[in-house]
Amino acid sequence: MTSTVVSFNTPFVIFLGDIGSETYAKTGLGLVEWRRDQCIGQVRLPGAGVDAGVRDLTVAEARARGARSLIIGSAAVGGGIPANWIPSLRAAAEAGIDIVAGLHIRLGTVLGLADAATRGGARLVDVRVPPVDLPVGTGRKRRGLRVLTVGTDCACGKKYTALALDRELRRRGVASDFRATGQTGIMIAGRGIPIDAVVSDFVTGAAETLSPDNDAAHWDVIEGQGAILHPGYLQVTVGLLVGSQPDAFVLCHDPLREHLTGWPSFPVPSLSEVIERTVATGRLTNPRICCVGVSLNTSKIAAADRGVFINQAAAETGLPCVDPLVEGVGPLVDRLLAEFSA
Amino acid sequence: MTSTVVSFNTPFVIFLGDIGSETYAKTGLGLVEWRRDQCIGQVRLPGAGVDAGVRDLTVAEARARGARSLIIGSAAVGGGIPANWIPSLRAAAEAGIDIVAGLHIRLGTVLGLADAATRGGARLVDVRVPPVDLPVGTGRKRRGLRVLTVGTDCACGKKYTALALDRELRRRGVASDFRATGQTGIMIAGRGIPIDAVVSDFVTGAAETLSPDNDAAHWDVIEGQGAILHPGYLQVTVGLLVGSQPDAFVLCHDPLREHLTGWPSFPVPSLSEVIERTVATGRLTNPRICCVGVSLNTSKIAAADRGVFINQAAAETGLPCVDPLVEGVGPLVDRLLAEFSA
Repeated sequence: MTSTVVSFNTPFVIFLGDIGSETYAKTGLGLVEWRRDQCIGQVRLPGAGVDAGVRDLTVAEARARGARSLIIGSAAVGGGIPANWIPSLRAAAEAGIDIVAGLHIRLGTVLGLADAATRGGARLVDVRVPPVDLPVGTGRKRRGLRVLTVGTDCACGKKYTALALDRELRRRGVASDFRATGQTGIMIAGRGIPIDAVVSDFVTGAAETLSPDNDAAHWDVIEGQGAILHPGYLQVTVGLLVGSQPDAFVLCHDPLREHLTGWPSFPVPSLSEVIERTVATGRLTNPRICCVGVSLNTSKIAAADRGVFINQAAAETGLPCVDPLVEGVGPLVDRLLAEFSA
Repeated sequence: MTSTVVSFNTPFVIFLGDIGSETYAKTGLGLVEWRRDQCIGQVRLPGAGVDAGVRDLTVAEARARGARSLIIGSAAVGGGIPANWIPSLRAAAEAGIDIVAGLHIRLGTVLGLADAATRGGARLVDVRVPPVDLPVGTGRKRRGLRVLTVGTDCACGKKYTALALDRELRRRGVASDFRATGQTGIMIAGRGIPIDAVVSDFVTGAAETLSPDNDAAHWDVIEGQGAILHPGYLQVTVGLLVGSQPDAFVLCHDPLREHLTGWPSFPVPSLSEVIERTVATGRLTNPRICCVGVSLNTSKIAAADRGVFINQAAAETGLPCVDPLVEGVGPLVDRLLAEFSA
């Protein structure tokens, strides 16, 4: 991985502040779910109403236990840093612990934090800020195998599905890396590129940088962004697709959604339309690209009705179809490995 | 036009410095070719080897004649501003004349220029710097008509063709605006958005901002960027296409080019492939999108052979085909107006 990819050190502690609701702590809870092995504990302030289920630590205790990063895992209303959080962040930075955040504001603008980091030799890592030295996409074929998650819309399970595919591949002893393209994914992975924040000219190059040459049998599982038939974001999706040059992709879909979320005059396209466009576009840099399955979000469907939706998607595509939270992604990985066995 | 579009005031003078070769003065020469009516003259330094064919002026004379902008129309080797150019630029800024440039460096970093601009009440306009307050694309249908130039590759006539279409429409009394998306185009138009410098998430929104609602019979002629089957830049092309929601497009092509310039392992796609992909993609925001003709660059083809290439492209596409520098774009505008007459 080159220096153009955002990265931070592990192990880490999660900072939850005094946040009252789990809704505002999604990043911290996701980190515990997906990277518990690298999580030493949580730092909370008096009045905190969320518990991530890991050991409570002070900043001094976190340092003593070897924490190398403190990740701000909750969002305050307004997106900034409340004044009562700042002393803890300064103390961590002065203790040499990197501060990591995915806020709209930059950490360097938080009062006194940059000075504290200088004194402590800590870094301030804004995972929403893309690297500045990205190349233009070359289209050159890279070694190794790649699978990308795509969607019929935004926010329909692309990150979760990619993380689950990576975990299942590793569980089977297959070499795999999760490649993060959004802020929460980057925090979970500890590295990645916030692809939608990259200057347009460099999106394909950013995607190439994110999944570099690798061993012939190694899988990169790449977190998708946007949707290829989305009137606002398709350019992000297309650049990520062509730069990633995936061999395979998994299509994520929420079967209850009728219109693109936030774009009520655009219906959600069919599974077939998205597969067809993804293959047609991805073929430019990888002629063998194919869909290996469908990941359905059935969380809002009654248990008795789930099977109907799963069977319908399987029938429409002729591919394995699962809800990763219910069945897991085993059938998708079976298909992936069957299609691309040496 | 909203404030999110780069713009500068006219009339202008061109600053050519002491540049020795026309190769380095393409912007200045293009400005004289396309906006002679707004060009008061040229400011040159001793030793200049290029003459744009307009009146030589000192900065003081330019001011006296009402120049509101001084456009740096030549590029020094290295892309910066040579030290011996700076006194003239400072003098113009102090005289209240806006300084306009499309350099890799920002004008504010040129020694003393920001102070001079403050004293004179002048603006420093970097046309390569995109606006920061762009929206996300909505896909909402806008009033008015739009034609976009697209290409089989980069640098094959998209800007020239768009300017020629706009000029021909105006000549026939049809309301039209050229909408610039690259730095030279923006200088010629006096406004526009450098689309390839926009953060990826906002490319469709930038394109929507660039060609806002207009009268039902008004044409926006939009300068295309990149190419839809290009492994480095297709994301720019796709975002501009979907945000522009063009009714029509003209396909630009260099028939002697076998591979994408700078990407030797990617052959130039066929006219049919590019038309098909452009229609399939553009249909998302404008279901009636169609190709109205082909603009060929035949400058390197012997006069006796030109007809073969023109006829071949016309036969392949069933559309009017011209070299705008030879035949002009009349047949393309005929077709455009025939397809979209009220």
